[in-house]
Amino acid sequence: MSAYPKSARPALIIGSVAIDRVATPFAQSDNLLGGAASYAAIAASYFAPTRVVGIVGGDFPKPFWQRLQKHGLDLSGLQVDPEGKTFYWSGKYHDNFSGRDTLEVRLNVFEKFSPVLTPSLLESPFVMLGAIMPALQNQVVDQFAKAKKQPFILADTFDLWIHTARVDLDRLLRRLDLFVINEDESLLLTGERNLVRAGQHLRKMGPKSVVIKKGGHGSLLFHRDGYFSISAYPVTKFVDPTGAGDSYAGALIGYLASVNRTDFAAMKKAVAYATAVSSLTVESFSVNRLSGAGRKTIDARLKELIQITRF
Amino acid sequence: MSAYPKSARPALIIGSVAIDRVATPFAQSDNLLGGAASYAAIAASYFAPTRVVGIVGGDFPKPFWQRLQKHGLDLSGLQVDPEGKTFYWSGKYHDNFSGRDTLEVRLNVFEKFSPVLTPSLLESPFVMLGAIMPALQNQVVDQFAKAKKQPFILADTFDLWIHTARVDLDRLLRRLDLFVINEDESLLLTGERNLVRAGQHLRKMGPKSVVIKKGGHGSLLFHRDGYFSISAYPVTKFVDPTGAGDSYAGALIGYLASVNRTDFAAMKKAVAYATAVSSLTVESFSVNRLSGAGRKTIDARLKELIQITRF
Repeated sequence: MSAYPKSARPALIIGSVAIDRVATPFAQSDNLLGGAASYAAIAASYFAPTRVVGIVGGDFPKPFWQRLQKHGLDLSGLQVDPEGKTFYWSGKYHDNFSGRDTLEVRLNVFEKFSPVLTPSLLESPFVMLGAIMPALQNQVVDQFAKAKKQPFILADTFDLWIHTARVDLDRLLRRLDLFVINEDESLLLTGERNLVRAGQHLRKMGPKSVVIKKGGHGSLLFHRDGYFSISAYPVTKFVDPTGAGDSYAGALIGYLASVNRTDFAAMKKAVAYATAVSSLTVESFSVNRLSGAGRKTIDARLKELIQITRF
Repeated sequence: MSAYPKSARPALIIGSVAIDRVATPFAQSDNLLGGAASYAAIAASYFAPTRVVGIVGGDFPKPFWQRLQKHGLDLSGLQVDPEGKTFYWSGKYHDNFSGRDTLEVRLNVFEKFSPVLTPSLLESPFVMLGAIMPALQNQVVDQFAKAKKQPFILADTFDLWIHTARVDLDRLLRRLDLFVINEDESLLLTGERNLVRAGQHLRKMGPKSVVIKKGGHGSLLFHRDGYFSISAYPVTKFVDPTGAGDSYAGALIGYLASVNRTDFAAMKKAVAYATAVSSLTVESFSVNRLSGAGRKTIDARLKELIQITRF
């Protein structure tokens, strides 16, 4: 993999590793490497040494292992339950990708997953909590607290937890450095009708900074030192949005880890890199385009993002 | 009004002048100055000397005349039918402003409106055709052609004409320098499912340049020399979107007229000014905030737009 800059510190990604089946209005594909941690860790690996905490079953295909290894990921925290089966998700996108239905979920080994961080993993100064149950996300934060570590913590969530695990989610929010959420979920969680107000409102709920992802319309960053709005990269070959948000968050934590900074300027650049990286994810099923693109392509897209937004 | 820069050339705005009644999910108001030409002309007047072509009835309230005059508009092309009544529109916005229903339209004097340009108005080098019937928009272009004038022509449209006047609209598109259209209409008109492709497709239908307006998500410019994407100004006091698109187009043509340029760099800056100006329009009913804001506020918002999008 890339030679990381001297400033780079390790990033730890905690979340699901899955086998997916995806149907879009135009095509479908199955037996895909999926899960938030897969997308996020590959994205982060372009910027900083990256560690994965998650769980898979004995059926996890060898090519998927090889794909993750190819990115130089530290997989020592990826538990294997040889008797169990890997988390399985099947989904179908609506016309024009305006939404999606989950057709089937088999939690399998994920049902009894409990993230346990070894002393070495607890040394990670940048942490991303994928959108697993808020109770589990809190368990991870508890382990850092018990070890008297204060890493920079980014968390993602999804609408199910807003509806079913609000107390745990509210507790989590008060412990976060950066909360990443999509547009609809930000309105749902705050009761606001305007994204700028939703972002401001979310910061009052605890997270030091907030990012609202608007899919094809870019994203918004709310930071103590200011507001930042970035356009989407102009994708014309749109194949499958699965994992876009996960690779966005992964690139974001990866870039912050690579420069070992979390000030407003670094955060803006991280959001720009996240935009560039997630634009690759949607150009193929699974992690194929994301994994194959290479850092040069990402840097070229970052440059393009600057060009198309300056006046 | 403002002292215009030496480079400034006159902008001509053709469209409806109306009396509106508007209901939003939070408030309602009636007897409002409305119509595309009212919003567009006031917006343009911040940048360049502006002329209006339209029609009103004998009932057009004196305060509305005064409001337009306050902006130094040349109203010699605003016909008055003393026997008739002014165009009346009443609309109601859906929850969260996701759409709107037209509750009542009385065309009144607008029914027999035929834009006739005097020789002096035909000298206008920058022209905006509001979203009136494409046949009427073509009539205006015909008059310039007959007078052997080639002004820079911007046109707007709306979904009704895409459904009912496609032949006239297609003819118009081939005669435009700049076509301004909103997100949903751009997909409807092109059959594309992706805004970047829709913009590219629209340019192939004739207009030299295309702007796609995405409301609270900003706008996209497709120009021979490149692509430009701008974020929305972060409005938190959202009152009424009526006229936002009209003031956007008016500011756009006004800025181009003020610098007497239409290259890519000028077009990008015009789009940025349009963004700043239309963000004012939505902060009140009617033209109140737009008209009261002043050029200083607009320039301050332009500066903010630069700040919040640079990284």
